[in-house]
Amino acid sequence: MTDFDYDSIKTGLNRDEIIDRMRDTLSDFRFSHCVRVEKVSRGLAAEFGGDIQRAGLAGLLHDYAKERSDQEFADVITKKNLDPTLLNYNNAIWHGVVGAEIVKDELGIYDEDVLNAIRRHTVGATNMTQIDKCVFVADFIEPARDFPGIKEARDYAEKSLDSAVAFELKHSLEHLISKNREIYPETFVSYNYWITKGEL
Amino acid sequence: MTDFDYDSIKTGLNRDEIIDRMRDTLSDFRFSHCVRVEKVSRGLAAEFGGDIQRAGLAGLLHDYAKERSDQEFADVITKKNLDPTLLNYNNAIWHGVVGAEIVKDELGIYDEDVLNAIRRHTVGATNMTQIDKCVFVADFIEPARDFPGIKEARDYAEKSLDSAVAFELKHSLEHLISKNREIYPETFVSYNYWITKGEL
Repeated sequence: MTDFDYDSIKTGLNRDEIIDRMRDTLSDFRFSHCVRVEKVSRGLAAEFGGDIQRAGLAGLLHDYAKERSDQEFADVITKKNLDPTLLNYNNAIWHGVVGAEIVKDELGIYDEDVLNAIRRHTVGATNMTQIDKCVFVADFIEPARDFPGIKEARDYAEKSLDSAVAFELKHSLEHLISKNREIYPETFVSYNYWITKGEL
Repeated sequence: MTDFDYDSIKTGLNRDEIIDRMRDTLSDFRFSHCVRVEKVSRGLAAEFGGDIQRAGLAGLLHDYAKERSDQEFADVITKKNLDPTLLNYNNAIWHGVVGAEIVKDELGIYDEDVLNAIRRHTVGATNMTQIDKCVFVADFIEPARDFPGIKEARDYAEKSLDSAVAFELKHSLEHLISKNREIYPETFVSYNYWITKGEL
């Protein structure tokens, strides 16, 4: 596989420096998860044709902000004038959409392809790029993941990114509904789109 | 229970005349289902406080148009200038929303409370009336219904209409997702609303 070359993207820090920041701000569990997602995301980009460096960097950083407080997310939403309806939701939504802003501000990463993949990794989108799909799927199937359906998810990820995206959205909705939880509107829009495209 | 008094609603035909029309245009299976829903809907209105006559008439007529052709529904959508995005859907959606127009035109029933309950009986709504809820729930639990979860649905319907509505929407979404089917946007909006209100 291609070497790490995150300096080629408009990054304020190189990979070693990013890794140091992540070790400082994340639990060991989450840090290891991020490194595994980086690896799987690079592999998917190599396999299915995608920008390996951007898929890798976005995979590494997808959960960068997940351990921040609700108050910090709410402050960022207000300060950066993000969609105020975001305030109705919680960490599960914020760490992607709002997390991308924190990545931008703290790490000086301005590449919108990387930021978008971070934004979309929890809810998907109808207009997902290859980079978005690699991160979305890698997060779901990285080697430490274990849940009913994981084998099927990995099988789809060998077949095509689109089918793996569709399966993941279906699985996420089933999980939310089984817990009597509200569904974020964008997740529902993503599901409706990919369920007809993904060839499950 | 109160006698049938559908003449008190602005109906063009009395109950016997409506029944005759339904026997002519529906299969025996569907006709019997409609009569069972009428009875259960009246019972729920009596139990939980609602307009028994309107809940009954709407229950009787909820599937009045279900056996019409796709072409007939498409023609009504165009002719009556209904939301053109309806054309993207199918009988499962049309027989409620568009079916109410057919009931109005063919039977001379102009009572909007009755028509709304017919419109909403497949997808629900955030602003459901007691009549809407009675028909929605009666359709799901009438005595001939048999599916995994029916006992739970009937238990909720003894507890409260809101919990029964929430359970039905949850069950419907689970069913659609298990079949890899698209979800009609209004169904999703209804689910998100009632899942937080319905106390499941």
